Amino acid sequence: MTKGVKIVTIGGGSSYTPELMEGFIKRYEELPIREIWLVDIEDGKEKLEIVGEMAQRMWDASPYDVKIHLTLDRREALKDANFVTTQFRVGLLDARVKDERIPLSYGMVGQETNGAGGILKAFRTIPIILSIVKDMKELCPNAWLVNFANPSGMVTDAIIRYGKWEKVIGLCNVPVMAMMQEPKLIGKTLDELVYSFAGINHFHWHRVQDLEGKDVTSQIIDRLYEKYNGLPANIFDVPFFKEQLKQMNLIPCGYHRYYYRYEEMLDHLLQEYNDPNVGTRAQQVKQTEAELFELYKDPNLYHKPEQLAKRGGAYYSDAACETIASIYANKNTHIVVSTKNNGAVPDLAPDDVVEVSAYIGAAGARPIAFGSLPPSERGWLQVMKNMELCVEEAAVTGDYGLALQAFTINPLIPSGETAIRVLDELLIAHKKYLPQFAEKIAELEAAGITVKDEIARNLSKEEVVNV
Amino acid sequence: MTKGVKIVTIGGGSSYTPELMEGFIKRYEELPIREIWLVDIEDGKEKLEIVGEMAQRMWDASPYDVKIHLTLDRREALKDANFVTTQFRVGLLDARVKDERIPLSYGMVGQETNGAGGILKAFRTIPIILSIVKDMKELCPNAWLVNFANPSGMVTDAIIRYGKWEKVIGLCNVPVMAMMQEPKLIGKTLDELVYSFAGINHFHWHRVQDLEGKDVTSQIIDRLYEKYNGLPANIFDVPFFKEQLKQMNLIPCGYHRYYYRYEEMLDHLLQEYNDPNVGTRAQQVKQTEAELFELYKDPNLYHKPEQLAKRGGAYYSDAACETIASIYANKNTHIVVSTKNNGAVPDLAPDDVVEVSAYIGAAGARPIAFGSLPPSERGWLQVMKNMELCVEEAAVTGDYGLALQAFTINPLIPSGETAIRVLDELLIAHKKYLPQFAEKIAELEAAGITVKDEIARNLSKEEVVNV
Amino acid sequence: MTKGVKIVTIGGGSSYTPELMEGFIKRYEELPIREIWLVDIEDGKEKLEIVGEMAQRMWDASPYDVKIHLTLDRREALKDANFVTTQFRVGLLDARVKDERIPLSYGMVGQETNGAGGILKAFRTIPIILSIVKDMKELCPNAWLVNFANPSGMVTDAIIRYGKWEKVIGLCNVPVMAMMQEPKLIGKTLDELVYSFAGINHFHWHRVQDLEGKDVTSQIIDRLYEKYNGLPANIFDVPFFKEQLKQMNLIPCGYHRYYYRYEEMLDHLLQEYNDPNVGTRAQQVKQTEAELFELYKDPNLYHKPEQLAKRGGAYYSDAACETIASIYANKNTHIVVSTKNNGAVPDLAPDDVVEVSAYIGAAGARPIAFGSLPPSERGWLQVMKNMELCVEEAAVTGDYGLALQAFTINPLIPSGETAIRVLDELLIAHKKYLPQFAEKIAELEAAGITVKDEIARNLSKEEVVNV
Amino acid sequence: MTKGVKIVTIGGGSSYTPELMEGFIKRYEELPIREIWLVDIEDGKEKLEIVGEMAQRMWDASPYDVKIHLTLDRREALKDANFVTTQFRVGLLDARVKDERIPLSYGMVGQETNGAGGILKAFRTIPIILSIVKDMKELCPNAWLVNFANPSGMVTDAIIRYGKWEKVIGLCNVPVMAMMQEPKLIGKTLDELVYSFAGINHFHWHRVQDLEGKDVTSQIIDRLYEKYNGLPANIFDVPFFKEQLKQMNLIPCGYHRYYYRYEEMLDHLLQEYNDPNVGTRAQQVKQTEAELFELYKDPNLYHKPEQLAKRGGAYYSDAACETIASIYANKNTHIVVSTKNNGAVPDLAPDDVVEVSAYIGAAGARPIAFGSLPPSERGWLQVMKNMELCVEEAAVTGDYGLALQAFTINPLIPSGETAIRVLDELLIAHKKYLPQFAEKIAELEAAGITVKDEIARNLSKEEVVNV
Repeated sequence: MTKGVKIVTIGGGSSYTPELMEGFIKRYEELPIREIWLVDIEDGKEKLEIVGEMAQRMWDASPYDVKIHLTLDRREALKDANFVTTQFRVGLLDARVKDERIPLSYGMVGQETNGAGGILKAFRTIPIILSIVKDMKELCPNAWLVNFANPSGMVTDAIIRYGKWEKVIGLCNVPVMAMMQEPKLIGKTLDELVYSFAGINHFHWHRVQDLEGKDVTSQIIDRLYEKYNGLPANIFDVPFFKEQLKQMNLIPCGYHRYYYRYEEMLDHLLQEYNDPNVGTRAQQVKQTEAELFELYKDPNLYHKPEQLAKRGGAYYSDAACETIASIYANKNTHIVVSTKNNGAVPDLAPDDVVEVSAYIGAAGARPIAFGSLPPSERGWLQVMKNMELCVEEAAVTGDYGLALQAFTINPLIPSGETAIRVLDELLIAHKKYLPQFAEKIAELEAAGITVKDEIARNLSKEEVVNV
Repeated sequence: MTKGVKIVTIGGGSSYTPELMEGFIKRYEELPIREIWLVDIEDGKEKLEIVGEMAQRMWDASPYDVKIHLTLDRREALKDANFVTTQFRVGLLDARVKDERIPLSYGMVGQETNGAGGILKAFRTIPIILSIVKDMKELCPNAWLVNFANPSGMVTDAIIRYGKWEKVIGLCNVPVMAMMQEPKLIGKTLDELVYSFAGINHFHWHRVQDLEGKDVTSQIIDRLYEKYNGLPANIFDVPFFKEQLKQMNLIPCGYHRYYYRYEEMLDHLLQEYNDPNVGTRAQQVKQTEAELFELYKDPNLYHKPEQLAKRGGAYYSDAACETIASIYANKNTHIVVSTKNNGAVPDLAPDDVVEVSAYIGAAGARPIAFGSLPPSERGWLQVMKNMELCVEEAAVTGDYGLALQAFTINPLIPSGETAIRVLDELLIAHKKYLPQFAEKIAELEAAGITVKDEIARNLSKEEVVNV
Repeated sequence: MTKGVKIVTIGGGSSYTPELMEGFIKRYEELPIREIWLVDIEDGKEKLEIVGEMAQRMWDASPYDVKIHLTLDRREALKDANFVTTQFRVGLLDARVKDERIPLSYGMVGQETNGAGGILKAFRTIPIILSIVKDMKELCPNAWLVNFANPSGMVTDAIIRYGKWEKVIGLCNVPVMAMMQEPKLIGKTLDELVYSFAGINHFHWHRVQDLEGKDVTSQIIDRLYEKYNGLPANIFDVPFFKEQLKQMNLIPCGYHRYYYRYEEMLDHLLQEYNDPNVGTRAQQVKQTEAELFELYKDPNLYHKPEQLAKRGGAYYSDAACETIASIYANKNTHIVVSTKNNGAVPDLAPDDVVEVSAYIGAAGARPIAFGSLPPSERGWLQVMKNMELCVEEAAVTGDYGLALQAFTINPLIPSGETAIRVLDELLIAHKKYLPQFAEKIAELEAAGITVKDEIARNLSKEEVVNV
Repeated sequence: MTKGVKIVTIGGGSSYTPELMEGFIKRYEELPIREIWLVDIEDGKEKLEIVGEMAQRMWDASPYDVKIHLTLDRREALKDANFVTTQFRVGLLDARVKDERIPLSYGMVGQETNGAGGILKAFRTIPIILSIVKDMKELCPNAWLVNFANPSGMVTDAIIRYGKWEKVIGLCNVPVMAMMQEPKLIGKTLDELVYSFAGINHFHWHRVQDLEGKDVTSQIIDRLYEKYNGLPANIFDVPFFKEQLKQMNLIPCGYHRYYYRYEEMLDHLLQEYNDPNVGTRAQQVKQTEAELFELYKDPNLYHKPEQLAKRGGAYYSDAACETIASIYANKNTHIVVSTKNNGAVPDLAPDDVVEVSAYIGAAGARPIAFGSLPPSERGWLQVMKNMELCVEEAAVTGDYGLALQAFTINPLIPSGETAIRVLDELLIAHKKYLPQFAEKIAELEAAGITVKDEIARNLSKEEVVNV
């Protein structure tokens, strides 16, 4: 490496960028950054400028001399990068509004990484990430790609499987939050416990041992029913069934609520959807975002504002910084990441991407072999991973039948005519970002299919006008 | 073998017994039967006598001298049996009414082999089949057990896994019906096609080749949308989505409708449930059964009445007779059976019971290796098989947490409080047959939980009184 | 299919061809052949003519009107073929002499399908079979390829793996001979037993059950030590260790002697090698072949001469005819064939070619799932199959390091300098047929490496002169 | 834990004990030891006393107050132990002499952990380790067992598989030595490289990456052919074939020489065996040991003598101390250990013990998922692991047929009559330690089988007299 590290952040205009800067500043001694490039697209130019100036102010207020470059030219930025982080959202928050509202308008879970919404997000994101990988092969073939664009697991899997790019690590803040909150419950610090995670992104379980090697998972489970606040802000906090958790003797991840408490999670989402004063998560986030960007505009603000923690992805960026520092300084830090299985979860194929406990160092992620899961977790994990494989292939090929297969086996989507309708409306609503499905979308439009949900429909219209 | 074959039928008072007799009479030349023992329990004594006399009349009208023995003493019957068939229904049709109505009273699929009903049926049936196996080890250790007690797959799996009894074959009429109906669709006879089935009971797919080895699955799929009548009488005929079938290039089984067209199947079940003039399938069947037994009482009836075909299980018994004859005469007939996987479906463990194309002969079932299924089918098959494993273990241990796990991962049961409620009511309703869950049931009763559905509640009451 | 079947035999000048003709004549009623094309290369032209005329005489003496076509133009022959059989030997028997004598000259097993000789035979044969497959894709894309060119397992595997041709069945006479001889040992006919084979070509085991489903393997093993003559003529008959066979409760194949009785088999081979009046098997066979061709020249001979049975491959052709007839007439015959695993032997990958019991019909081979083998057989099978994979890849790529890897893990080749020397001499000796290794061979020649064994060296010289 | 750690060393009279003490003294600050118990058997009493006094002197010369307890009463020692290390050798060095000389007297590899010798060592050691585990379950159920009794892999596997004891880690010095020597070859320190090991004990491979994640295995391989001295003292240093190593792009372990250079290793062993002035390794070691014990007797010696490094097991004890300290202080050190696979090497079963890179901390070993090996390594690893399974089961059951199976598939034992003879003589020679084979041994003795090698025969006689 030439002196100092070059970091490129695609989707640099994100409201999370200040957290990323804070993480880098904190770790500068072990990760001596030379320059940071924030890349965004035309539609995000304004945000990029606001957040870019904020980022530069943060560095200027630090003891370190780091230059922030802002650009809409991805290829210019990627040249000779050492680390590329991806945090973009294709279609911005408006796309998320549609991913949420269209399924909910038919009484189905509308969520950005689970269910129908997550599938459509993958359809939009995978082609873009593959084009980034293509650029990286040419412009920075030795760089590491640290992805936290969602759905992080499928995106990471597609990068390896279809992009044939092995130097990638996928990140998520969910395990971080569990490890921040749980130890307190049993009067321990994280250093006094050993965590082992296994599964896939937003669908993993963990067990915990103490320093004498004793399993304390059950003890934590007991305390979870007394007090707990370890969920990302975007997940409604309905408790798991205690008899179930005690039986599995594993702690599910926050997102597992959608699967273990489907009924209540759906009710909650529908309640927000139906209340015009609340709206779905994306609508709430749009508000938070607007506020954040107002704050960022303040030329006297040179540190991450507290309000950022309200966003569901809090700590995401911190995990990213720690991952990058661990690779650079060969720290062998225990981080839970999306990486190639290699056998760590023997119930899935060795070349599937999984989300597991790993030690992160110069060689990237070294996943810890967890062993087979019990039948109840194993079966469910297998259907979810295979669903992901269908989604990825459909994202690459635009095969509608396969999209339908993915919808059908997804546990959050009741199959039938309504599911078809939801799929079709989502395709139409995201038309701009789904060239691979162009033919099918034309056919649906010709058949007169339109988006029922008014808000989603109007957002779709605007978009078309804008382009 | 001593001269002639001794056959024992447990659940001999079933309305299907005449079909079984017909099947044996038809095959007498290759399967020379010496004696048939029909066994039933006290509650089924009256039916046993009616059907037993009918059976004897059928044989008397045949050229063969076969004696029908009727008994309530299972152990007496099993002594030195060559083949034991099991077709009993623990709790008779009333139990099925509860399996259907209790879930439906909460808007969930109520069906006797799928969803909550199927799980409860397994809870009741597995302990009984294991006690039969225990008797067989003592009284007829060389006999073959041919099971068609439902849920046939889980029951067969439990026989091998927990009963440690390897000489068993599980049967189902669903593949038979597909092979009877589909060839006509493309102007062929069954002899002109090669069928390959893979999956588990009530959850399998098949592909078809012609005599030149060419895959004609897609051709059959096309014709299925023109005309088709290959479903068992108990499955509502809503078509699969054509784009989905064309993508998979496999034909799902009839029961797959519950998974691929969940919404419409549930609507249909609810419609029947809510219509007092129709009622759920069990209620309809009770009517058919009553009519059948009226017919059977006729001392001049000595052949299987046509009305029997209306029952969903038609051809079940024929498959059983063909299986027995194939073992006895080493015929190597292609039959689709539940048997130990041994690798035939590499996506499941070698010791899982699967339902696959097999050649049946003196060595029992020799399953044909099908190869890996594509991701969409693979993942779903894996979750279903693992759900079965949870159900079986819960049936053996009475572990409520595991019952809950099975409910949770079952694709036909939306998880949440309602699922818990359905499970709890079902446990209470079937109390008499669930000694393994006695402690939990007592706890539920103490908590004041009662069955909401009036019909189911009343049936449960009667039962308690009767015992 | 147009009226009547067109069969093409590549390596038609083989001395086995009359057996093939006999097999077709015997099955004409179920396999109505229209025409047979015997194809050979320039070097085999004389033999082709002798055997071709003999073949025509055989048909002329039959009630059937079938025309034998002789050609050196493979592509002309392949046009619209229904079945293609491959029985060629690259380099003719002289190549086999070298495969045997060169290893033996260094005290190593020299055998045409096992050890160093088998590996070199694969190196010569795989490129040719892949070129045949390439022609078939163009000229007869619906034909079945029935291979009995050795090493049959690796050749069949390469056809599927590298040739991407799925309509292939690999054959061997070893299982046939076991099934012909063993039943008598326990006073049974083959019809009274159920055979189950699992493994790979020349490295498989079988178990046997009687018509009551009882395992009689152990009983056969006991009798094997009393009297037995079920070996191909080319395998020296040293008995297996009885305590070992009783422990495994499986019957190994004849070729397993090389592995279970390595010491004695090697001694025997060396004894023949060192006795100028005997010579290695290929030298003996050359004599038998010369005699056979003398016989074939007799214009009055119109049936297969008895002397043919002395060749090791007896019944090979009969198995081929039965396979073809079973496919054509959808007979579902139990034949042991090399075919894609699909899970039949779960200890190997689903896409590995294995040699297993299969039912042969219109859809080709349907392998029977055998289940996992015990550790002793499993481990050995795994090393052998993986050795095959190395050989095949080296045959395709000419990678010398990989050839060395294959030599190293092959249980019949003690690793070390001598193994290298044997490999190098074999490469030089077969130079004409190993263009993929041309560069390495040039290097070896430049280093002055020559063939030590005089007979092998002289044969190599002639060959070079001839070309 | 009560204050301070209690360590129990079984086989405490070993000449390696001083190294162990040194390791503990060095790590006292992170591993505060309270007391150390050295346990041995009656036959080793004298050595125990010598080495025990030496050990106490070492601690007395340190700043720490640790008491060494010497005992022949294993159960007394085990009470409330925190860590138990096992380094015993059943039958002492005399048994090793026999393991080496008997095979060599028939021209076969005689080596204490590979080939026939290693199998017999497992037969003697496994029953003893299982009896230790039985005691531990009763007396110190929370202790960790750190095994370096050889054959370390099979012993560790048997502890988990048959002993049902999960808190065990198996150790070996071979990976340590590779990691000490190789980095220098490319001008690096160990800190500047990332090592990944996979395989089983004495049969593993590794790859190496630098701090930029680049694979430098090939670079190290190149330098290995220039200068290298990274082998344990007990392995003859014949180089691997370079073309082979470059092809695999992995570095085999030192013991792999027996497999990759069988011929030369055998020649070397035979040369030593046949030279009365040299003798086999055990004979040489006996000399070294005698010298060491003479040194240990010196009351002024209170540090590990340099001569100890001559023993093949050097650094073994250091690895053990580091492992114990890493568990105690939850250090997450990268150590290569024998531990349950859990998927780390997907080519073996999840419950097989493998030897892999792992992070060692409070939860024991967390193996790093390595992914599938290429065919050449995969196949060989599979046959070796399955051989181990046969050995372990034969060690537990005394099944002679299975012992024969293990001998047969072991790549270092040419099968045949001679192998049988070697097995039989070894059984007789080790009679005292093989009660599980008593019946077969009596049969062999009755048949007049005696040990051919004079030295081994005489050692066997003495032993019988002594007991």
